[in-house]
Amino acid sequence: MPNTKIAIIGGGVIGGGWAARFALAGHDVAVFDPDPEAPRKVGEVYANAEAATRRLYVAPLPSPGKIRFAESIADAVAGVGWVQESVSERLDLKHRVYAEIQETLDPEAVIGSSTSGFKPSELQQGSKDPGQILVAHPFNPVYLLPLAEIVAGPDGDPRAVAWAQKLLRGVGMHPLVVRQEIDAHIADRFLEAVWREALWLVKDGVATTEEIDDAIRFGFGLRWAQMGLFETYRVAGGEAGMRHFMAQFGPALKWPWTKLMDVPEFTDELVDLIAGQSDEQSGMHSIRELERIRDDNLVGILQALKAKPWGAGETVANHEKKLRELSFAGAEVEHDLSAPLALHSATVLPEWVDYNGHMTEFRYLHVFGDATDAFLTWLGMNAEYMAGGRSIYTVETHLRHVAEVKEGRPLSVTTQLLGHDEKRIRIAHVMREGDGGDVLATAEHMLLSVNTAESRACPLVAPVTERLAAVAEGHGTLEAPDFAGRAIRAV
Amino acid sequence: MPNTKIAIIGGGVIGGGWAARFALAGHDVAVFDPDPEAPRKVGEVYANAEAATRRLYVAPLPSPGKIRFAESIADAVAGVGWVQESVSERLDLKHRVYAEIQETLDPEAVIGSSTSGFKPSELQQGSKDPGQILVAHPFNPVYLLPLAEIVAGPDGDPRAVAWAQKLLRGVGMHPLVVRQEIDAHIADRFLEAVWREALWLVKDGVATTEEIDDAIRFGFGLRWAQMGLFETYRVAGGEAGMRHFMAQFGPALKWPWTKLMDVPEFTDELVDLIAGQSDEQSGMHSIRELERIRDDNLVGILQALKAKPWGAGETVANHEKKLRELSFAGAEVEHDLSAPLALHSATVLPEWVDYNGHMTEFRYLHVFGDATDAFLTWLGMNAEYMAGGRSIYTVETHLRHVAEVKEGRPLSVTTQLLGHDEKRIRIAHVMREGDGGDVLATAEHMLLSVNTAESRACPLVAPVTERLAAVAEGHGTLEAPDFAGRAIRAV
Repeated sequence: MPNTKIAIIGGGVIGGGWAARFALAGHDVAVFDPDPEAPRKVGEVYANAEAATRRLYVAPLPSPGKIRFAESIADAVAGVGWVQESVSERLDLKHRVYAEIQETLDPEAVIGSSTSGFKPSELQQGSKDPGQILVAHPFNPVYLLPLAEIVAGPDGDPRAVAWAQKLLRGVGMHPLVVRQEIDAHIADRFLEAVWREALWLVKDGVATTEEIDDAIRFGFGLRWAQMGLFETYRVAGGEAGMRHFMAQFGPALKWPWTKLMDVPEFTDELVDLIAGQSDEQSGMHSIRELERIRDDNLVGILQALKAKPWGAGETVANHEKKLRELSFAGAEVEHDLSAPLALHSATVLPEWVDYNGHMTEFRYLHVFGDATDAFLTWLGMNAEYMAGGRSIYTVETHLRHVAEVKEGRPLSVTTQLLGHDEKRIRIAHVMREGDGGDVLATAEHMLLSVNTAESRACPLVAPVTERLAAVAEGHGTLEAPDFAGRAIRAV
Repeated sequence: MPNTKIAIIGGGVIGGGWAARFALAGHDVAVFDPDPEAPRKVGEVYANAEAATRRLYVAPLPSPGKIRFAESIADAVAGVGWVQESVSERLDLKHRVYAEIQETLDPEAVIGSSTSGFKPSELQQGSKDPGQILVAHPFNPVYLLPLAEIVAGPDGDPRAVAWAQKLLRGVGMHPLVVRQEIDAHIADRFLEAVWREALWLVKDGVATTEEIDDAIRFGFGLRWAQMGLFETYRVAGGEAGMRHFMAQFGPALKWPWTKLMDVPEFTDELVDLIAGQSDEQSGMHSIRELERIRDDNLVGILQALKAKPWGAGETVANHEKKLRELSFAGAEVEHDLSAPLALHSATVLPEWVDYNGHMTEFRYLHVFGDATDAFLTWLGMNAEYMAGGRSIYTVETHLRHVAEVKEGRPLSVTTQLLGHDEKRIRIAHVMREGDGGDVLATAEHMLLSVNTAESRACPLVAPVTERLAAVAEGHGTLEAPDFAGRAIRAV
């Protein structure tokens, strides 16, 4: 297997998105882009990507890889296992870039191109090693949308395709191998078809840009986020299935609905019309705001699909499972045991607030529950521990809501061990705004060691017992917080 | 305003979806369909719709309207304010149906057609009152997707359009008024364009039905569920905006990507190829299963978009707000005060369970919090009460987790008043599986009356004080549950 260092050639929105996805999955990344603005642009994309990725997965992320800005293509690609090329869509430029890359690149490494406009056979023309080049076409925002179209073409190398699949799955993507090269691969052919039709509708005054967007996002867009075209129609056909649907819908193919056989002239007038309507539709938001709204929505949609899990949500669920395993494996970090442990922080998400803009009651327990999980993971309750048929459950909780908190605020939780015996662990959490700010809420929990097969209490075992003893020694010198051991008073 | 009774002519998947949406919003519905299977089919759609709608909104639904099956068109449309026609796509049939409807229909009422294939001017041909007929084109599943395209055509009556908008907004839809009639209205023109291109790709062996669906749902389908085509591209253009995007993307219009200028022959061979691929892709799920999966996903996506709120999620948020107001207004039902109150029930949703398949810790408080809200609403803490600058917050909580519960299980909560003073209310909840089954968890809460402007405690006022006194008298004779007033014991 080639090594897992990555080179990014071209640091725009797409290249920056790739850099962020790779780095947030733990890969070291070297970026080359002659534009002096590239570090700023990549940095902005990375900030969005980090916020979104941290919200997308419940599991902790690995330590991010380093992003460095290289002096030259040779500097960027030396010693890497994957090069992602996202330069402008000019074939002569891409050919020059590949030649320069291949002077230095490890023969085992692969060059993936973000191109939407060129087929792999076109990219490979004149290359000294054509099989090293393939299409790896992502969708914006690259750090959230899982799809990457992989096209190797007739001269493709199956080993390069296999490496692309392995690498991209490892960073939470869904590589779709396209079996036959074709202009625009697959997805962009559909986008092109809809774009042409939409331009006609605007030009002819049938609908504005906003009306067209609404016709998509209030209707079939919601269907396509989870099932595609064919599965949706299969369901529409009812128990009689796809054949029945096609018998009904087939004749519509003869109807002269779409105007796609023709292309509207791309005049200044048409550009003005569309740009003007778009300003009216979306001009109240800056592009930065729209990006944040888009990312919030995509995270929410992906999390909704994760519940089943289904489609893109299954990709997220699988990746999250891997991240959780990694975090279990890496829970060996040492902490100062003479003070409460700071193991969990969070941000108040849009879906956590009620119609008054305050964090909903049960989300306080959501944050405390995650803090309990972090503490247990740190104690050594990892996949291996649970594979032994043991887990640790919360059996009793006492919460005090001290203050309100609004969307977007950072939260931190500290955890103190109050006591334990052979089966039970008693802890206290304090939730503060930011790092050490005002107290927002407190929690006291009783946790119980459980034999999961028989659903009954059982003794804690190593390594949890050893680590508990160490924490008990440190926290034994601390005073118990005043809220511990209290009942709700009668009125 | 015409009256709010509804007639549904044609009781298939679309007619049944309309019947369910109207009935679940409180409208009485008369369905006419000569098919003897229609009551069964509508009943099945209604069951799916009810489950999905109850999950979609946090607010309680109004009492559903009655659905009756009429003997004739005249019987169905007598005395209604809206007729929704969803018969087969044959113009002569639709004309005969409209003539029969208009013999009986109130002149103030409107006929909406679910047609995707005909323009309103075609539907109106030969009618004695053309302005009474318009297109109200929904998207399957009608009870979840908010979009309805409203097209009145050149002979349309603006009053009919206004009534369509008011009625459909009232049932939680997003009526999109199409300003100029055109074949297939707006959205189906895009679906047709993509369908044609997809058929070519399958026929030519470039991609299977599953690969095409994946190219949509792992990529741009996720974008289109929230922003449409133009707003997505505006963001892609970056700070330079739509004009910059068009300058980049414009030339692609000249590229011969799509095959849409031509239509594939609809041979048996093509039908077999597609039906076979679809079986391979989705045949492991029955259509009923796929419908449930689709509905779960759509509810999840709509709830994710509700958080912002954005797009279709804003439609849901607005409707939920109305439902909440209605439920506040209707909170006058009498209950037996000699026993704990049964005011809240719920179902364990897919997104409430963890990776072990059990309901997550914080969702217990989610259910208890909703039960507290139901109790407070019943006490009279309605919109009017809150408009006076007072609310009631939970300040302290004691939970005991007694048993695990799995996805899909029904839950019920009973509520007992333990005590109150001029500012505080102390209650106990018991959560059981089903109605009176095993105890799953208990909660004790202290609630505090708060002046919301000044964020400080303040006295409770009428009508909450009166109703509290009545409950206190009834519940005063009950023994306090054994978990009340307890602290977590030290270990």
